[in-house]
Amino acid sequence: MTNPTAAMIVIGDEILSGRTRDSNAHHLAGRLAIQGIDLREVRFIGDDRRTIVATVQDLSAQRDHVFTSGGIGPTHDDITADCVAEAMGAGIDVRDDARAILQAYYDAREIEMNAARLRMARIPDGAALIDNPVSAAPGFSIGNVHVMAGVPRIFEAMLDGLLRQIEGGRQVVSRSFLLDRGEGDIADVLRQLATDHSAVSIGSYPAWTGAGYQVAVVLRGAEAGDLDAVAAELRAAFPEARE
Amino acid sequence: MTNPTAAMIVIGDEILSGRTRDSNAHHLAGRLAIQGIDLREVRFIGDDRRTIVATVQDLSAQRDHVFTSGGIGPTHDDITADCVAEAMGAGIDVRDDARAILQAYYDAREIEMNAARLRMARIPDGAALIDNPVSAAPGFSIGNVHVMAGVPRIFEAMLDGLLRQIEGGRQVVSRSFLLDRGEGDIADVLRQLATDHSAVSIGSYPAWTGAGYQVAVVLRGAEAGDLDAVAAELRAAFPEARE
Repeated sequence: MTNPTAAMIVIGDEILSGRTRDSNAHHLAGRLAIQGIDLREVRFIGDDRRTIVATVQDLSAQRDHVFTSGGIGPTHDDITADCVAEAMGAGIDVRDDARAILQAYYDAREIEMNAARLRMARIPDGAALIDNPVSAAPGFSIGNVHVMAGVPRIFEAMLDGLLRQIEGGRQVVSRSFLLDRGEGDIADVLRQLATDHSAVSIGSYPAWTGAGYQVAVVLRGAEAGDLDAVAAELRAAFPEARE
Repeated sequence: MTNPTAAMIVIGDEILSGRTRDSNAHHLAGRLAIQGIDLREVRFIGDDRRTIVATVQDLSAQRDHVFTSGGIGPTHDDITADCVAEAMGAGIDVRDDARAILQAYYDAREIEMNAARLRMARIPDGAALIDNPVSAAPGFSIGNVHVMAGVPRIFEAMLDGLLRQIEGGRQVVSRSFLLDRGEGDIADVLRQLATDHSAVSIGSYPAWTGAGYQVAVVLRGAEAGDLDAVAAELRAAFPEARE
């Protein structure tokens, strides 16, 4: 049985202009890895109707799940909900259940419900709401597309609830080793290990510490036993490796 | 005259698994904005030959420039150079100019040139080398595709040299205003401003400060005069706005 696959779409001109640094992709990657869902691709795109529609259609057809962040607020540049509805061939309008959630939240805070805020109750026909415990305005799931807010605190809270409802796969097992060497010193050994142990994925990630090069060797696979065999050979070749 | 367009491809399983948080996309976005090159899309993909080849071909056809990061080191999982060569229909082998650069670097440090390190001299036919002032192993440009390292310190150094050789466009002018309000309070005014001033792009970016909501309103356009007009109307509507 293979694990479910996923893609993410980060929507917003502010990311592409360098104004804002996205953090939602990294957060989602970590959460999906724990749940055994394979994140295969992330795309950052701008607030452009045709691009959003085409990207949602493309990735929705390719993956088991598509997660989006950004563009579901009350302002004129928040066009994600309408674009996702169009991509999925669904109608969209203010929906009573979403409106009731917003109305209760604003009533409790004596905030006026205006036309702009009401836009956040626009939900595609047939979509299931995603709870927003931070600021009420819901996200939604339609087909295999899960639409969430861009503000990290809200994105993370929405994802928390959503992931409890999505079936995961088998979590990958991993072991990680650190070496104070350049990659060029260990590449031949790693290549041989990768050839000999096809059930284990062996990644090599160099970094600069300020004092010199360091490399992290990460073993990943479905079975702990497979990893143990590779780890033993790695330690034999590089006894100084720190796990 | 419109500005040149660009896309970026961030290559590496470690990004999609959540192990590593990419910083190169945000760095590139900021640098391209200053140079007047419109970054239209970023894709994070894994170390998979077919995916890399298809993504390079797709984006190379759509944009004036494609920037890649990751996968050009000496280990078995570094397959970017070969994949880009395949995508661009070029042959690839160890090239004398790249080998000479590496040999000089290793000779000066009394490091042995082995088969793994020599892989970093594999450069597609017809490609121009991109200087690596940090660790010598060069990147390269072939057609409109610019291939750079994933380690941020090296990526940034390579980009620095590369961007001096790429013609930019007209830098976008921007002004930014901060308001201690929710987006729902200002959305109607912003929508009217956006309708009245089509030459100015008006972005609205909410954030949570811990004490309450804040929203940044960012005006972007080609002409400072257009921005001044919108800024004056924005200040009239929200005198407390801080620029």
